[in-house]
Amino acid sequence: MRLATLRSNQPDGELVVVSRDLKKMVSATDIAPSLRVAFDDWGRNKPKLEERYRTLMAGTASNAIAFDEARCHSPMPRSFQWLDGTAYESHRYRMTRGRPAPEWFLKEPAVYQGRSDGFLAPTQDVPLGSEDWGIDFEGEVAVITDYVPYGASPSVAASKIELVMLVNDVSLRAVQAVELGKQFGFTRSKPASVFTPVCVTPDELGSAWRDNRLHLPIRCSINGQLFGDPDAGEAVHGFDAMISYCAMTQPLSAGTIVGGGTVSNQDLKRGFATIAEARSVEETSDGVAKTPFLKWGDRVRIEMMDAQGQSIFGAIDHKMARPS
Amino acid sequence: MRLATLRSNQPDGELVVVSRDLKKMVSATDIAPSLRVAFDDWGRNKPKLEERYRTLMAGTASNAIAFDEARCHSPMPRSFQWLDGTAYESHRYRMTRGRPAPEWFLKEPAVYQGRSDGFLAPTQDVPLGSEDWGIDFEGEVAVITDYVPYGASPSVAASKIELVMLVNDVSLRAVQAVELGKQFGFTRSKPASVFTPVCVTPDELGSAWRDNRLHLPIRCSINGQLFGDPDAGEAVHGFDAMISYCAMTQPLSAGTIVGGGTVSNQDLKRGFATIAEARSVEETSDGVAKTPFLKWGDRVRIEMMDAQGQSIFGAIDHKMARPS
Repeated sequence: MRLATLRSNQPDGELVVVSRDLKKMVSATDIAPSLRVAFDDWGRNKPKLEERYRTLMAGTASNAIAFDEARCHSPMPRSFQWLDGTAYESHRYRMTRGRPAPEWFLKEPAVYQGRSDGFLAPTQDVPLGSEDWGIDFEGEVAVITDYVPYGASPSVAASKIELVMLVNDVSLRAVQAVELGKQFGFTRSKPASVFTPVCVTPDELGSAWRDNRLHLPIRCSINGQLFGDPDAGEAVHGFDAMISYCAMTQPLSAGTIVGGGTVSNQDLKRGFATIAEARSVEETSDGVAKTPFLKWGDRVRIEMMDAQGQSIFGAIDHKMARPS
Repeated sequence: MRLATLRSNQPDGELVVVSRDLKKMVSATDIAPSLRVAFDDWGRNKPKLEERYRTLMAGTASNAIAFDEARCHSPMPRSFQWLDGTAYESHRYRMTRGRPAPEWFLKEPAVYQGRSDGFLAPTQDVPLGSEDWGIDFEGEVAVITDYVPYGASPSVAASKIELVMLVNDVSLRAVQAVELGKQFGFTRSKPASVFTPVCVTPDELGSAWRDNRLHLPIRCSINGQLFGDPDAGEAVHGFDAMISYCAMTQPLSAGTIVGGGTVSNQDLKRGFATIAEARSVEETSDGVAKTPFLKWGDRVRIEMMDAQGQSIFGAIDHKMARPS
């Protein structure tokens, strides 16, 4: 099943079911007004949405119309919880200027909480008050979970993964440097994240979804130039471990979004899913970071193709901009 | 105006308007089903709720019934954003074992993001998987804001403070020590927070609300014994500064909860609003921390009285417990 959310005058947008080829869609607001609300009773709503998807794919859905990514918001324009981790060893290594990952990193992830009260739409300008903030992107895989009980094991956690999508976890590196010193997380250095127009159930991913990881390259471009396409399967920690980690001292509500961390590969030829990593590698090899951070007007595109070269989630494609 | 939320089978509970003496209440679900939803259109809903409050206070509200704190959930059982800061210099000093506050602390707060997808009710047991987690409470003042625009100044931020309440920011000190090393915030060491049954508009606080601070003692008890009643007015940063800090790189959605940090006074005779501070002072003076962290079965009560000795917000009064 593939789902999306149309922008509307409602804060949670309007739920639609999208065809596998991303060419058609049909409204699902009679089942639930929005994906966010659908998760308040996911056990009841999921089979109804799946049935709607079957009729859409069979060509028997009434009122099916053309799907247009440009009309989409993030699948959940807002969520009660957005938890984002770090799970790629080469990312960790490069972000700490070549220091080996600490001992704990290979045992368990680190997870921060992101601002979840107002995600941007996938083609919306990212408002940024200053070009001196070290404007960066982070290409990641994210999942939406059903309710995860207190202290859930990784296997219980795995059974709660309902939907998969991509995210640009917009990051402000100069602001982050200050916040790291405060040890309180990334309240200011991680402004509104942006998700792909479409989210899909894991079964849509076929064999690319295994070990609770998505084994496909995430294509990240800046101003139309490929910046990196690292394989998202190289995560040290799968989403089972990530979700279980988050549930140690509190259950996760249905509709929680969990991010897998900036995708990164040991193989430098794959490029990068964030500018900060490229700069770290340049500093190590050349003594100086050459790749600039983003400026107003720069455009970032993030997407993922299936084995047939077909876009799975649609694209995040947005411009950095002065706040309007 | 005073508002509360009754527990119900709805995830956001049911909105009621409460009388000044906390003795009567009247339903407001015809205005908005819940406080959380009321904030989706606060400009329209606020005057209607104020009118309901006036009729309740005038004794002309139809269907007014006795108010019972035991029926209450937290005023917002879940929120899209819960941001909690640190703003008391003596707290900072004691939490860092007597090291002076860093230079930045006097200029700006530090703010972390808390789990906001499932707060506990004020009299609900706090589920805690282990007594070895260093179970602690933190007594704080918190506010609920209307929409705060991108980059809002402190004075704009001040105009967005809609409601005031108290919170127990339950903290797990042994878990926190590990998370501080990861620098990603408090994803596991700050499980579900708990708010007082009642939240009130700032005008209900009279002269005790000034300089965007609440100048009254917060009474914190453990197992019926007063542990501390520090004055909440001693904050270095008011809520105007705290909210403005949070809005630097992203607007705050209507219904955002912002916490003012663990209340603390330089005067040690006022006691403490968290066990960790008491232990730090003991370590400094006696070489060893004597006050134990909480165990299963221990009960914490947090409330605040007005000048007439009347409870303003009702009480958080809950027990630490094994997860059921």
